[in-house]
Amino acid sequence: MSLKDHQNAEVAAARAQSFTTRRPTVAALEAVLYDPQFVLDHGFVRVIDYMGDDAAIVQSARVSYGQGTKKVNEDKGLINYLMRHSHTTPFEMCEIKFHIKLPIFIARQWIRHRTANVNEYSARYSIMENEFYLPKAEQLALQSSSNRQGRGETLSPENAAAVLELLKTDAETCYQNYSHLLNQTEAGEIIDPQRDCLARELARMNLTLNFYTQWYWKIDLHNLFHFLALRADAHAQYEIRAYADVILDLVKSWVPMAFDAFVEHRMHGQRFSRTAIAVIRSMIQGEKVTAETSGLSPREWRELMESLALNQEK
Amino acid sequence: MSLKDHQNAEVAAARAQSFTTRRPTVAALEAVLYDPQFVLDHGFVRVIDYMGDDAAIVQSARVSYGQGTKKVNEDKGLINYLMRHSHTTPFEMCEIKFHIKLPIFIARQWIRHRTANVNEYSARYSIMENEFYLPKAEQLALQSSSNRQGRGETLSPENAAAVLELLKTDAETCYQNYSHLLNQTEAGEIIDPQRDCLARELARMNLTLNFYTQWYWKIDLHNLFHFLALRADAHAQYEIRAYADVILDLVKSWVPMAFDAFVEHRMHGQRFSRTAIAVIRSMIQGEKVTAETSGLSPREWRELMESLALNQEK
Amino acid sequence: MSLKDHQNAEVAAARAQSFTTRRPTVAALEAVLYDPQFVLDHGFVRVIDYMGDDAAIVQSARVSYGQGTKKVNEDKGLINYLMRHSHTTPFEMCEIKFHIKLPIFIARQWIRHRTANVNEYSARYSIMENEFYLPKAEQLALQSSSNRQGRGETLSPENAAAVLELLKTDAETCYQNYSHLLNQTEAGEIIDPQRDCLARELARMNLTLNFYTQWYWKIDLHNLFHFLALRADAHAQYEIRAYADVILDLVKSWVPMAFDAFVEHRMHGQRFSRTAIAVIRSMIQGEKVTAETSGLSPREWRELMESLALNQEK
Amino acid sequence: MSLKDHQNAEVAAARAQSFTTRRPTVAALEAVLYDPQFVLDHGFVRVIDYMGDDAAIVQSARVSYGQGTKKVNEDKGLINYLMRHSHTTPFEMCEIKFHIKLPIFIARQWIRHRTANVNEYSARYSIMENEFYLPKAEQLALQSSSNRQGRGETLSPENAAAVLELLKTDAETCYQNYSHLLNQTEAGEIIDPQRDCLARELARMNLTLNFYTQWYWKIDLHNLFHFLALRADAHAQYEIRAYADVILDLVKSWVPMAFDAFVEHRMHGQRFSRTAIAVIRSMIQGEKVTAETSGLSPREWRELMESLALNQEK
Repeated sequence: MSLKDHQNAEVAAARAQSFTTRRPTVAALEAVLYDPQFVLDHGFVRVIDYMGDDAAIVQSARVSYGQGTKKVNEDKGLINYLMRHSHTTPFEMCEIKFHIKLPIFIARQWIRHRTANVNEYSARYSIMENEFYLPKAEQLALQSSSNRQGRGETLSPENAAAVLELLKTDAETCYQNYSHLLNQTEAGEIIDPQRDCLARELARMNLTLNFYTQWYWKIDLHNLFHFLALRADAHAQYEIRAYADVILDLVKSWVPMAFDAFVEHRMHGQRFSRTAIAVIRSMIQGEKVTAETSGLSPREWRELMESLALNQEK
Repeated sequence: MSLKDHQNAEVAAARAQSFTTRRPTVAALEAVLYDPQFVLDHGFVRVIDYMGDDAAIVQSARVSYGQGTKKVNEDKGLINYLMRHSHTTPFEMCEIKFHIKLPIFIARQWIRHRTANVNEYSARYSIMENEFYLPKAEQLALQSSSNRQGRGETLSPENAAAVLELLKTDAETCYQNYSHLLNQTEAGEIIDPQRDCLARELARMNLTLNFYTQWYWKIDLHNLFHFLALRADAHAQYEIRAYADVILDLVKSWVPMAFDAFVEHRMHGQRFSRTAIAVIRSMIQGEKVTAETSGLSPREWRELMESLALNQEK
Repeated sequence: MSLKDHQNAEVAAARAQSFTTRRPTVAALEAVLYDPQFVLDHGFVRVIDYMGDDAAIVQSARVSYGQGTKKVNEDKGLINYLMRHSHTTPFEMCEIKFHIKLPIFIARQWIRHRTANVNEYSARYSIMENEFYLPKAEQLALQSSSNRQGRGETLSPENAAAVLELLKTDAETCYQNYSHLLNQTEAGEIIDPQRDCLARELARMNLTLNFYTQWYWKIDLHNLFHFLALRADAHAQYEIRAYADVILDLVKSWVPMAFDAFVEHRMHGQRFSRTAIAVIRSMIQGEKVTAETSGLSPREWRELMESLALNQEK
Repeated sequence: MSLKDHQNAEVAAARAQSFTTRRPTVAALEAVLYDPQFVLDHGFVRVIDYMGDDAAIVQSARVSYGQGTKKVNEDKGLINYLMRHSHTTPFEMCEIKFHIKLPIFIARQWIRHRTANVNEYSARYSIMENEFYLPKAEQLALQSSSNRQGRGETLSPENAAAVLELLKTDAETCYQNYSHLLNQTEAGEIIDPQRDCLARELARMNLTLNFYTQWYWKIDLHNLFHFLALRADAHAQYEIRAYADVILDLVKSWVPMAFDAFVEHRMHGQRFSRTAIAVIRSMIQGEKVTAETSGLSPREWRELMESLALNQEK
């Protein structure tokens, strides 16, 4: 995808700005500031602003008068310690603001993360753009048989083509009729001066859930990590994961130490239950444990073996 | 609308329950507990549970060992005082839980109230029902010319009929194709064993925004009043106002003293700006003030005159 | 400790109430409703009200029209699944309200849990009671040498006695002078009609941090579990842990299934880092891993060995 | 007051920093960045970081690709409109971070504003400084007779001196004994190697509520305005108002348009009840209304007359 010309011009103007500041500044994030990172077929994530850096986490943990940083190693150790022991408040001292364009059905998942600030494009006030999400053929999959809320095998190319054709036709028809109801083009021009213009807040109900909306979304680093832990996870729906993956990269540029600690302790860390820990202990001590003797349910046993990358026959 | 038979049976069973409790209990709310209050063409609001009553507000304001209530008049006076002076925490000590069925485009407005607990029906996990919102003809209105996010005049009957026909056709087509993609009926039966069942999390994107979803929604009384102040207001979209109006009645049954205080001070109260107060003062003292000499913008002047139900020529 | 006579009478009156309700009711929690559970020397926790039970978690997870419960085993399995996979919203559908009396320095830790509703006794408005916390001798301990924010060895009885004497004297002196500043007794009687009564909001600053305050505190079950995971933990300060332990018992009476799932997966569960999981895997496969070869810091290695109850020499 | 030498050095080093950024930058706020604004006898407020400016409010309200600003007048009008109609989300898009030093009894009021991020100096981990708040003589006042939670007349100079002497003596004694319990000086040196060092988390309970603590506090502009509306108000306790007044000035430097709108509509605006509006209307129409015929309680009548700066005899 790409932006429209006047949007590109606005982005370029914002990127051309340069100010002098005493605030902590992160060069790697400044480099991509305002720049759209494209996601899916028409979506994007743009960093609009940020507050703080790795040193700001250390600074607030130490309630410091100055930078609060000591040697790099000590800072890194402190950030790791905070992450490991769920001392979350220092991570809340960093904040980031995004401009995001995303399909409505993904926006509905996303908004369930309540501890964030949101300003969404208003379809009561403005005309929705004629842009809807069509998955790539390789993303079209059967309902999973093992996971009631997931995807299973990929569709055959022919079946995928039929699905896409159907999604496309319905979205196009709905938008056409949306315009007809509004009696206005996407650009806001009246189509037929003799006809009525239905209120926008009503006409919008005719659009399908794959139409794109957009919002400004601002969140602190602790809550962003929580979002990423859930949405960059293998169990998350592909479409929201695509956004989470892009945001992961941006966070890595922004606060590399906190990012590493997050990956080590949360993203690739794992919580084990009391029973699972007892199983692990027995196994380390060389005892034979089976699904049956473990005290775990079959599903928990399977998940434990997967987490440890062990053959389930062990 | 009405519930399906098995849903009616479940509601009836819940309503047939009777327990003994030491907790504060409100007979008027018990009377409608679990009972759907129908809204729009297929929606409803059901009270599922509640905590506290008017006395609980008084009790927590007094950090009491017992009921905290004194004479009815004193309690009423205290609740009024708390509302008038925005001492909001005692109102947070009451909580209510609803089961709500509502169109998706309204759910998207609703969810912006973040200080609440929500459990929504999952279209990743389950099949969406074939129910969508069609406005009554008298609710179809033109885009307002004065208010960019509101409705103006009502459509003529013929135009309304055409709009409804179009909305209905698109929703029906989209649901039909949603079923086709799922290869499952609304009841979950496989349509054609030879065909693929697309993952539910994908198929749902073909539905229009007027399809109904449902959720459990739990909120404390202070935040509910905030919701009602915004959504039972004349500027709110009609469809969410319809829900707010039903909830207003339920709140009146539940906490009549707090409800009266809310109506007096917030719902029918009004905030005036520094300049507007100066205008009011001059007028009371018999001075002539006009839109031009008021120091208010034309729009603010108009709003002030409306608030005071005064002829704008005054 | 014990309540004053009029407080006991108020509690007895509340406990004598009996109402009929259609709401879910938990007999084991009703049995202790309003009853103070004493904590420390003058503190208590009283359950004032509650909403929901184990079935309510299931009901909202299923967005059900009725109770939502199926067989006991299925409900238990679902609750376990929700806890294990951090599907937290159904747990938010249960709510509990406490009346708590606690030392101010503990109240300051407690209030950091922001997602709760609080109504505190106002020392601007009312006179503080002459009750302060004195630890038991066996709770007096040295500053830990290994943990900068913890306790180490217990004091000798003689040293403990000296400490307590000092704490007691300072608190008594401060309260005496607080009364003198107010020129009012604890019961609100003017001491000397010739003297001034300093404003309460000023006089209170002369009290030490071990004086007791009290509040109404209302929280949903998910956030309560988070509180308990942190505050019933061995690293929490003893004084707040004493409260958390009492609350744990109350939660067990209230929602036994959710409680068991919490204990299994969170309280006695443990999060391991990516590196720790690799270490575990190697050990299970019979490889020798040492602190040095593990890739963990010495402290992380020690914590891992402790979590697995393994000899560190392994 | 003044900072210690090494603190001044840290502040100076932070202020000497200069970076280049593409982010919105506010020169007037940069000028005071990191600089302590002193409050009360030993307190301060320092701006540590900020995100956004007036244009950022406009930008997010317009969900803009660029700056979002149009003409100054239009921006000003939009910000006024948003404030007047309680469209609060665009104001949440600005964020500010402070380092604040304040007496504990004020910190306890402050923390009740839950929608903020806080990192407080830990008295479990560190030794508290020997600094406590002593009011100026002219701030010492009698308990108000009309307002149960406020101050009345100022004390006579002799009485004030006696009060201050008492507050000073008790705070000094308590700190001395705190040091004795810790067996450590303020600077962390062991006083007597033969004696025990009581755990810090215990010793702190011997301090009085006027000792200073400090924290990092981060909040968005909407929630900051809410804090200021309550705490810069004449009914707020003087000591917290002193902080609110300093923050007001900082906000004025930061977002002058939003600040003006806040002052006009919220700070010096006023909410009137339904009945009060009816009274106003009658008065404007020249009818005679008295306290008795107004339908207002005597207190509400008095408050209304005060709000309108009218003689109560009117």
